[in-house]
Amino acid sequence: MTQPEFWRGKQVLVTGGCSFIGSHLVERLVDAGARVRVADDLSSGRLENLSKVPASDWEFVQGDLCDPRLAAEVVRGIDIVFHLAAIHGGRGFIELHQAACSRNFVLDGVVSQAAVEAGVQNFVFASSGCVYPVDLQADVDKEVRLTEAQVGPPFHADGIYGWAKLMTEQRLAALHEEAGFSSVSCRLFTVYGERCPESHALTAMVGRAFLRQQPFEVWGDGTQIRNWTYVTDIVRGLLLAGEHIRDGSAINLGTEEPIQVREAAQLILEFTGQGGTEIKPLPDKPTGPYNRVASAAIAYERLGWAPEVPFRTGLKRLTEWYFESRQAESMSADEFAERLTTR
Amino acid sequence: MTQPEFWRGKQVLVTGGCSFIGSHLVERLVDAGARVRVADDLSSGRLENLSKVPASDWEFVQGDLCDPRLAAEVVRGIDIVFHLAAIHGGRGFIELHQAACSRNFVLDGVVSQAAVEAGVQNFVFASSGCVYPVDLQADVDKEVRLTEAQVGPPFHADGIYGWAKLMTEQRLAALHEEAGFSSVSCRLFTVYGERCPESHALTAMVGRAFLRQQPFEVWGDGTQIRNWTYVTDIVRGLLLAGEHIRDGSAINLGTEEPIQVREAAQLILEFTGQGGTEIKPLPDKPTGPYNRVASAAIAYERLGWAPEVPFRTGLKRLTEWYFESRQAESMSADEFAERLTTR
Repeated sequence: MTQPEFWRGKQVLVTGGCSFIGSHLVERLVDAGARVRVADDLSSGRLENLSKVPASDWEFVQGDLCDPRLAAEVVRGIDIVFHLAAIHGGRGFIELHQAACSRNFVLDGVVSQAAVEAGVQNFVFASSGCVYPVDLQADVDKEVRLTEAQVGPPFHADGIYGWAKLMTEQRLAALHEEAGFSSVSCRLFTVYGERCPESHALTAMVGRAFLRQQPFEVWGDGTQIRNWTYVTDIVRGLLLAGEHIRDGSAINLGTEEPIQVREAAQLILEFTGQGGTEIKPLPDKPTGPYNRVASAAIAYERLGWAPEVPFRTGLKRLTEWYFESRQAESMSADEFAERLTTR
Repeated sequence: MTQPEFWRGKQVLVTGGCSFIGSHLVERLVDAGARVRVADDLSSGRLENLSKVPASDWEFVQGDLCDPRLAAEVVRGIDIVFHLAAIHGGRGFIELHQAACSRNFVLDGVVSQAAVEAGVQNFVFASSGCVYPVDLQADVDKEVRLTEAQVGPPFHADGIYGWAKLMTEQRLAALHEEAGFSSVSCRLFTVYGERCPESHALTAMVGRAFLRQQPFEVWGDGTQIRNWTYVTDIVRGLLLAGEHIRDGSAINLGTEEPIQVREAAQLILEFTGQGGTEIKPLPDKPTGPYNRVASAAIAYERLGWAPEVPFRTGLKRLTEWYFESRQAESMSADEFAERLTTR
């Protein structure tokens, strides 16, 4: 369903473009012939994430997009915005830093307002599975497939991080209805892949394997379920959404493959030749909801999108990337532990 | 419970200080010896609302507080902030201009962030009865007393205007818990009194009586219930909250006196010598929830606050003020109609 020429020559802004997901998106946009501007404050993004993209193919603006002047500057001349910038982190960050996450109300509001005023053609918002009611995600014995319409009112988002995503979805829907502003909110479900930092569960577990941790720790009791979705599938979905959806609606981007944390741990131990290592649950650590899996039906219906990378394949790639890139740096166990709850 | 000397010499910022409620608050603060700075963009506030306050007693800064530079400037040297500025209006505005109201996410976030960074002693946030779940307010045959704890999760606020108020409450609570920032959210219930514009139901009805409208229109079927709360009671509550509550919690400021729209209409017709005029319901107009009444128990317990002005008394004052002030200006029926849905 991708239109081969759609992105050629398009002026595209990627906020948070130096981040894990952002950098994959920028690579793909450049490949597709777009002219890309990246805006990032480098609070968690890293310029080296874009080291494979030739400098002539993208433009970089560093700064805090809560500043309306900067936001107005970076949207100037832009056709399509991908708004990925956020105060974000893994579970350990978003549960323990709710006030920091509440800055996203401002960030999203300022960036979207600048886009409205600049008259961009489409605004693709990186929303989150965190908008779904947490009470639908509590039971690991149920088959969960979160469908777009299950987001209320009443609403029960996952922490202030999730509330901010939800409120921006609401604002974008109102802007479409009342002012005809084009947008799409893509609800990303637990994304993983190369460049994903240790604050996220899978990379954290790969890091423990790299450190040959014994016993091998997992947060929570290990039964919690996620539909980890590989980053190239997510990026493909973002592009399709940017091409095809402009009505201010929200769409899931996430696989329907449920994986338990302990299964993921066992796979990683197997990949790294440590099968049989004892797994030690840390039940007091933040886990988030215990069973979060998307329905991908509407993404398939509206975009022809379906995830292509099975969990085992993607996890192997993550593991190989991590071992390769970490061998080049020295990292103590203390440094590693700190990375788990920072951005 | 007011401490007579509490406000003397205090540096106080009132955002939205030229508005209906804001101007009453500024008068009271000046009376109590505070040094008041007013920040207002005059989008709905009017300088003449403060015409009774000697110019030497307050300082005025005009501008849009979504600009973080301006916000930083106006909080400089301030002890206590009253944040009343909002994209706000009566029912006709907030239901039909949700996208405009979503700017409050930015406004509240920017002003509160400036206050955090300036280290103010307390931040008094004008929240709203609109944070309460709308499904608790649907039945006119029930005795409704909305209590603070009834605000979820799950949440079901009243429109994006209500969601923005609720999210700012959440942010302030998180800022207190995670960073010790002092604040109180005052949930104001349908405030009325002198200077209240025609976009709000009571003033709209007084305006119709002024125009001697026949038949006399009311929005909705007229059975909807509000606990209209007189502005001087609200202002007293705001001051008490600013003095006594710093733990980031939320408190109702609203009477427990339920009044139906048609009762209010009849009183106004009686006051203006038009008793017996036919009342014509306009069922398609925005009404909001049909039964909204606060519990004032916690405000009494924590602040010793109870409303002092009965509805009949306050409504008579509003009517007299309106007739006096409108006699000085010419207003056509068309101009009046426009005021009902603008800010």
